[in-house]
Amino acid sequence: MDSVQIIEIKENVLADNGLEAQRIRRQLKEEKTFLLNLMSSPGSGKTTTLLRTIEHLKNDLRIGVMEADIDSAVDAEAIAATSVKSVQLHTGGMCHLDAGMTEQGLQALGTEDLDLAILENVGNLVCPAEFDTGAVQNAMILSVPEGHDKPLKYPLIFTVCDVLLINKIDVLPYFDFDMKKVVEYAHMRNPRLKIFPISAKTGEGLGAWCHWLWEQVDTWQTS
Amino acid sequence: MDSVQIIEIKENVLADNGLEAQRIRRQLKEEKTFLLNLMSSPGSGKTTTLLRTIEHLKNDLRIGVMEADIDSAVDAEAIAATSVKSVQLHTGGMCHLDAGMTEQGLQALGTEDLDLAILENVGNLVCPAEFDTGAVQNAMILSVPEGHDKPLKYPLIFTVCDVLLINKIDVLPYFDFDMKKVVEYAHMRNPRLKIFPISAKTGEGLGAWCHWLWEQVDTWQTS
Repeated sequence: MDSVQIIEIKENVLADNGLEAQRIRRQLKEEKTFLLNLMSSPGSGKTTTLLRTIEHLKNDLRIGVMEADIDSAVDAEAIAATSVKSVQLHTGGMCHLDAGMTEQGLQALGTEDLDLAILENVGNLVCPAEFDTGAVQNAMILSVPEGHDKPLKYPLIFTVCDVLLINKIDVLPYFDFDMKKVVEYAHMRNPRLKIFPISAKTGEGLGAWCHWLWEQVDTWQTS
Repeated sequence: MDSVQIIEIKENVLADNGLEAQRIRRQLKEEKTFLLNLMSSPGSGKTTTLLRTIEHLKNDLRIGVMEADIDSAVDAEAIAATSVKSVQLHTGGMCHLDAGMTEQGLQALGTEDLDLAILENVGNLVCPAEFDTGAVQNAMILSVPEGHDKPLKYPLIFTVCDVLLINKIDVLPYFDFDMKKVVEYAHMRNPRLKIFPISAKTGEGLGAWCHWLWEQVDTWQTS
């Protein structure tokens, strides 16, 4: 088992989360580090998708990962095994991360030598969507077994995300999941949402997603 | 499309949620109404499981359902089609229900003529676990695609539940889900947790679960 640095993060007492998030983004811009906030339900495949994404991009980008969890370090151990820099953030029961909590993670991770920092947020479609973490872009995973009606039921997260990964497309034959409808519903919430159908298990669709992510990092660093 | 009563519930301002929950349970005991609080991640199959459960029990019990959602009425419409009494609760963005919010739902539903009232809580493994709703028992659904490590990552909800339904066992062949491990992890959190593997899609395991639920209602009404 790989040894993982575990950070017990404290709840933010700042009055203005939005201002703090802007401050984080300015700092990241100076350091040329792109921060991606990755959100989803529990069990949609965040960690497996991250492992695949790291595999695709680790020769081109210096990557660091913050694994936020209420408890346990199972995800951070999986990430640590890839040899990219990682820390485990324990939220002490909190259901989301805000900008101040994210900053504690960024400081523990150390971002000055990173092109891409990824925050794996707490598995939850409700609360994380309400807090700007200071990320440059927000990504969300929805997995096929969860159903195509989720943009109707959890509107905010689809509105605040820049990109949606529809994961577990390898099990499409076994579920009543309507890809056309989910795209229609998601675009109802957010017409600019970029959507990639993927299977983190088989690798299908990962190339297109990783190329897009690489382009976002490149634009952030050079524009 | 069936017409559904939609209740915009307001956040509770009561200082002591626990006291309010006890008050609700005393009232339910007098009315001989059993309240089940059903929790899970988004997309684990709460509504389909409810539809199956209603089908099994509607000849023996007078059932009413409260569908809590941040937005939309798609679940309540599905329940209304079964002809059991139902209301849709809109939480206005709130990620959970507390006792005061549940009581607004119970009043809208009307419980004096019900044996079994079911609250389908907001899809979320974190926040709903923190609030006693006044339910007689708490049930949770974990679905196979979510993975067997969830009791390690979301400890509280497994601790506060009386019964765990492991849903979507029809797709076990397509996922790396270890039934022995999930039972071991869940019992680590809560040795008294009753566990039923089910498939709401095929109906497998539903009989045992519904018989157990019927027994709980009967005990509540007669003891």
